[in-house]
Amino acid sequence: MNFSSKYIEQAVDQLSSLPGIGKRTALRLALNLLKRDPEEVKKFTQSIVNLKEHVNSCSICHNISDQQICSICSNQKRDSSLICVVEDMRDVLAIENTQQYNGLYHVLGGVISPMDGIGPSNLTIDTLINRAEKDSVKEIILALSTTMEGDTTNFYLYRKLAPSAVKLSTLSRGISVGDELHYADELTLGRSIINRTPFEISINK
Amino acid sequence: MNFSSKYIEQAVDQLSSLPGIGKRTALRLALNLLKRDPEEVKKFTQSIVNLKEHVNSCSICHNISDQQICSICSNQKRDSSLICVVEDMRDVLAIENTQQYNGLYHVLGGVISPMDGIGPSNLTIDTLINRAEKDSVKEIILALSTTMEGDTTNFYLYRKLAPSAVKLSTLSRGISVGDELHYADELTLGRSIINRTPFEISINK
Repeated sequence: MNFSSKYIEQAVDQLSSLPGIGKRTALRLALNLLKRDPEEVKKFTQSIVNLKEHVNSCSICHNISDQQICSICSNQKRDSSLICVVEDMRDVLAIENTQQYNGLYHVLGGVISPMDGIGPSNLTIDTLINRAEKDSVKEIILALSTTMEGDTTNFYLYRKLAPSAVKLSTLSRGISVGDELHYADELTLGRSIINRTPFEISINK
Repeated sequence: MNFSSKYIEQAVDQLSSLPGIGKRTALRLALNLLKRDPEEVKKFTQSIVNLKEHVNSCSICHNISDQQICSICSNQKRDSSLICVVEDMRDVLAIENTQQYNGLYHVLGGVISPMDGIGPSNLTIDTLINRAEKDSVKEIILALSTTMEGDTTNFYLYRKLAPSAVKLSTLSRGISVGDELHYADELTLGRSIINRTPFEISINK
């Protein structure tokens, strides 16, 4: 595209460097920003500057936080004997939203993926092993994606954590709540038959 | 969503104010920005600051430009007797990319849309009429979208421009090049039969 202004070109280049945003969408976003009041644009850019300046990761669980230790790790009411290992901050959000989990987290920062040049040393695996060696930790839940990379990481973690005394568990796989049986894929349906659970009538859904 | 940091929340709020970007995508973009080097983030925000500070609209055609008069209006080689009226800068880019047009443009800045509170006074119609009254202008091409709002604007412009001596024309409508006939919608196909053109074998496609 041949833009009428080099500033537009630069803004489009920068905006299209974001994941999932192509040149056309970037131009649409740039034109939208251009139409706004200067204060609004300042607020927009300032929020990104603040994000980079003030947000760090928690020194214990590596979740994103603006304090040294995040609000979950510093919460005395949570069960510190339970650690849920996830890929990134979005998984923490998703699990927190279920309101079914009261333990702590450990954010790996990704999964082992040789294709993308991500090895075990790029993830926060060392600190996870240090945490696991503490007596207070009783169970570690591996809650990574069921992709090939996720499974590789699960296997690697299993080998590293097996010598310690902690119990290892993983999320149950099965038919989604509300799904129709004949739409479920074979693998999931197969697993949900093998891992069937005792029938219970639950009053509080 | 209940974020672990208020800076993340602010960045997500700001990013999701962009068109077509929801909260989830905004979070993905914010996490992507957070992973980058500080210089990269600075370059990103600076490009948006520059956009707002340096980019204005051309005083003649209202196209976006970093000069007082844009490169198209100031180009002596272009046919100044021809003005193509378009909605926004993206339409100028699209027509320029065809390399079939050598006249000037007039960017309206939108179309008349009472539903969105956009009336004739919010558009650059007055300056278009001023331009049309000059002797040098011979033809005005109305190249707006064929939506209800576009048609309304076409009709309004027609009424305003009819008293002046300029010739008014519009883009031809018909089957797209490369389209199969039976996939074309009835309206387009109908118009393309009514407005059929003499058969010509063109060597330079």
